[in-house]
Amino acid sequence: MQALRFQKGKLGIFDVKLQNAASDSVIRVLLSGICSTDIEITRGYSGFEGTLGHEFVGIVENSPDRPDLSGKRVVGEINVGCGDCQLCQKGDARHCPKRTVLGIKGRDGSHAEFVSLPSSNLLEIPPDLSDEEAVFIEPLAAALGITERIDLKNAEKIAIIGDGKLGLLCAFALNRVCPSLTLYGRYSSKLKIAKAAGIETCLVDETTHPYSFYDVVVEATGSESGFAMALDLVRPRGTIVLKSTYSGKAEIEAWRIVVDEISIVGSRCGRFKPTIEWLVNNRIDLAQLISDEFPLSKGLAAFDTAKQPGVLKVLLRNT
Amino acid sequence: MQALRFQKGKLGIFDVKLQNAASDSVIRVLLSGICSTDIEITRGYSGFEGTLGHEFVGIVENSPDRPDLSGKRVVGEINVGCGDCQLCQKGDARHCPKRTVLGIKGRDGSHAEFVSLPSSNLLEIPPDLSDEEAVFIEPLAAALGITERIDLKNAEKIAIIGDGKLGLLCAFALNRVCPSLTLYGRYSSKLKIAKAAGIETCLVDETTHPYSFYDVVVEATGSESGFAMALDLVRPRGTIVLKSTYSGKAEIEAWRIVVDEISIVGSRCGRFKPTIEWLVNNRIDLAQLISDEFPLSKGLAAFDTAKQPGVLKVLLRNT
Repeated sequence: MQALRFQKGKLGIFDVKLQNAASDSVIRVLLSGICSTDIEITRGYSGFEGTLGHEFVGIVENSPDRPDLSGKRVVGEINVGCGDCQLCQKGDARHCPKRTVLGIKGRDGSHAEFVSLPSSNLLEIPPDLSDEEAVFIEPLAAALGITERIDLKNAEKIAIIGDGKLGLLCAFALNRVCPSLTLYGRYSSKLKIAKAAGIETCLVDETTHPYSFYDVVVEATGSESGFAMALDLVRPRGTIVLKSTYSGKAEIEAWRIVVDEISIVGSRCGRFKPTIEWLVNNRIDLAQLISDEFPLSKGLAAFDTAKQPGVLKVLLRNT
Repeated sequence: MQALRFQKGKLGIFDVKLQNAASDSVIRVLLSGICSTDIEITRGYSGFEGTLGHEFVGIVENSPDRPDLSGKRVVGEINVGCGDCQLCQKGDARHCPKRTVLGIKGRDGSHAEFVSLPSSNLLEIPPDLSDEEAVFIEPLAAALGITERIDLKNAEKIAIIGDGKLGLLCAFALNRVCPSLTLYGRYSSKLKIAKAAGIETCLVDETTHPYSFYDVVVEATGSESGFAMALDLVRPRGTIVLKSTYSGKAEIEAWRIVVDEISIVGSRCGRFKPTIEWLVNNRIDLAQLISDEFPLSKGLAAFDTAKQPGVLKVLLRNT
């Protein structure tokens, strides 16, 4: 099958055999979304080599232990645990120390004709969600995952920094739980999408540097400058949520965290089941977040497009 | 009066007049402790110029609004708020945006013959605490302040990194609340002090790099390498407490905070009242933490000693 792989420092379309454990379900991929993490991997983040992609919707071809899933339209949780450790036994493989992660760590991803996952990772998509909506379940779960990491009950003012895909999804997700939320970004074209959904926005340019005191600031830019801005925006004893992963080190004024007694909370993956329910009940217009679509065979061109500033989600379609 | 001041980039003993508001109480300093923050200030931290020192015990000479305090032995909370803002009205000036901080920000400190503070900042010391114990109230309050910032109820394993003054005080403070606590340090002479108090210790040298999973890791080294070690020691979804302030920026692998969903919590000043009660009820042997004592007039030599590796608390005495 065709697969978009990063190997030996190079990204390319390769003809490969699907690597799957005999017990895994095999899914024919319909759509696979390019995430900023994919781009970071091609810059050395996580040291992964193999087929990229961890946001997908597809049709189950074959499921040895769940034959009822055959033919079903599914999405897949991306962390695959050992099954034996305390965390896995509690049903949460996200921090299993032996986990593999779809297209990120030890497991080929979904930018391919087929992808494999244990059936326990798969969730059926209700018919009222389109493929183009379902492919956002993974990043939307990551955005909603913030509510799992911090208690927003007493947060009166939230800022989100970054008007990229993840920042916009965080704004959609948290706008329903907080009375006052502001999205800071550098692209008026992207901020317009949030504004249309009733979200307050603020354009950051080189001359104006917003300064205020937010209870919670979500850093979703994936850059060092975003963290510095978060330190400026958060109130003393407030919380900064770190969402985005990027390679390398960030230079941080650690003393400010101490003096202002700030909390910094890392947040990675969310849960798919409550996210699917949330999306059914909160019909946000995800189509606006799709900038472009390419057939899998044009995966390299799709990546080049995804890397351009101002571009939102780029999808790969299996035709 | 004599005062040990940092001004125009230089540390020296100066003959100055006490700068005090008419409403402030004036305290004759008995002992004043040199803190690592003082040393950091002479390296540019906080941009402060003036008399250094924020850990002291003294006798009230004169208190315009609390004449009953005259002649009483006191310690003093170091944050002086505006008195008007919401925080000050709630009785906690520690994050008042207009605050001055004794010997750190906009207010001359205690490495002098006299120091001034509002009477509301002063706390009388019970007779069963010696001067040499009372002078530790400020840093001990900072150590106990950790329990104000995070809930240690479910912390089964705590690590403290750094066997300096602050690290040892944190170990003494938290050893009473956690069933399993380990102090990591580079000096067997200092670790011995903790060991004698029944605290588990681990000597870190260049060849062994301890690796484990702690629920909470307290970073009290005041160095970039301490933070990197904290990231290695903490378990996924665990908490790193940042205690020490140092100038400049730290290079941090921010992606690890996201991937392991770690919380980082800054902690600065604690409250004196509960600390005095704690110290009366938990008679820890603080004398072991005193490395040396100098008369105020030998303040420069005292600073030179305090900067030496392996040295713990250096006190200045008014004779």
